[in-house]
Amino acid sequence: MAQPALDFWFDFASTYSYPAAMRIASLAATNGVTVRWRPFLLGPIFKAQGWATSPFNLYPAKGRHMWRDLERVCAALDLPFTRPDPFPQNSLLAARAALVALANIWGESYCRAIYRAEFCEGRNIEKPDTIEEILENLGQDAKAVLERAGSTNIKSQLREQTDEAQRLGIFGSPSFVTAGGELFWGNDRLEAALDWVRR
Amino acid sequence: MAQPALDFWFDFASTYSYPAAMRIASLAATNGVTVRWRPFLLGPIFKAQGWATSPFNLYPAKGRHMWRDLERVCAALDLPFTRPDPFPQNSLLAARAALVALANIWGESYCRAIYRAEFCEGRNIEKPDTIEEILENLGQDAKAVLERAGSTNIKSQLREQTDEAQRLGIFGSPSFVTAGGELFWGNDRLEAALDWVRR
Repeated sequence: MAQPALDFWFDFASTYSYPAAMRIASLAATNGVTVRWRPFLLGPIFKAQGWATSPFNLYPAKGRHMWRDLERVCAALDLPFTRPDPFPQNSLLAARAALVALANIWGESYCRAIYRAEFCEGRNIEKPDTIEEILENLGQDAKAVLERAGSTNIKSQLREQTDEAQRLGIFGSPSFVTAGGELFWGNDRLEAALDWVRR
Repeated sequence: MAQPALDFWFDFASTYSYPAAMRIASLAATNGVTVRWRPFLLGPIFKAQGWATSPFNLYPAKGRHMWRDLERVCAALDLPFTRPDPFPQNSLLAARAALVALANIWGESYCRAIYRAEFCEGRNIEKPDTIEEILENLGQDAKAVLERAGSTNIKSQLREQTDEAQRLGIFGSPSFVTAGGELFWGNDRLEAALDWVRR
């Protein structure tokens, strides 16, 4: 019988997606759940709600709590944390490259490396150089991956994936969606989502 | 030595405050933490952010997820759940009466009974009748409590408490604040807040 499956929807700019990305592989393995990594862009979804930037910037009290809470969450998980500057970072190129990467065995390692660069190492993932270096560290042909990331095919794949996220009712990142369409939002709902698919 | 203490800030209209209110007393007792119940009004805080109603109404995708998620959260806790109609309910009178109630030994029971009426029994807590009946079931002189709830003293006490919430950086309910000013937002942060005060 096939393993139960869960879709992990994430935007590289999203703060709570960092701890989710760092812990989902081992948690899913422990639970016997297969995870499909689905990068998408929150920007168009936020825009549709009338937000021109992250709600954490639009609502300062909410933002202050989030940064402090994220520090606490990362400390409890023993994850290093550095506040990204600027925030949010434009995740378009990183997401396109992720679509290329995730067709390969090293795709999830690429995604974790992007989050690590942004949220541990204080690097700017908007810059092609950052992404190139990450790809090279994974032993990949960075130029070839980035060229493919800029292709019409990948560009429209990311747009379609973002449209699909919106159709699924996704409004934030990270989100977890079961085969039956059950939606769980937030790093703190990862365990509940895994429990759900194993029922 | 005094027990470690935690302030529990809540608005009776708030959805996730229902499971928080139902479980905080026993969780705090298990952890040896004293909880101070602090009713306040989210309305003025939302208005300061430019919201005329609950963000769950303003952002439908967020709202749809919240109702489904709350069902799941309540099911996992074995708490009955009925979606309140209307939502959000005006919690002004219930909150004023709570300030009267919480000066007495039966105060927390009153608060839980309000949440139960609203989120289990499908009743409207805006109505003085609902609050009167709850007070009577607690063996109290309902007319006297409601008269006191309408006094200038209680009215300004609730305003001051809401101002204090805002000064503490509170932007949602439930919130938990330690003596050192550490702020935790959300039912799903209750355990972390209790851990924090016990450190």
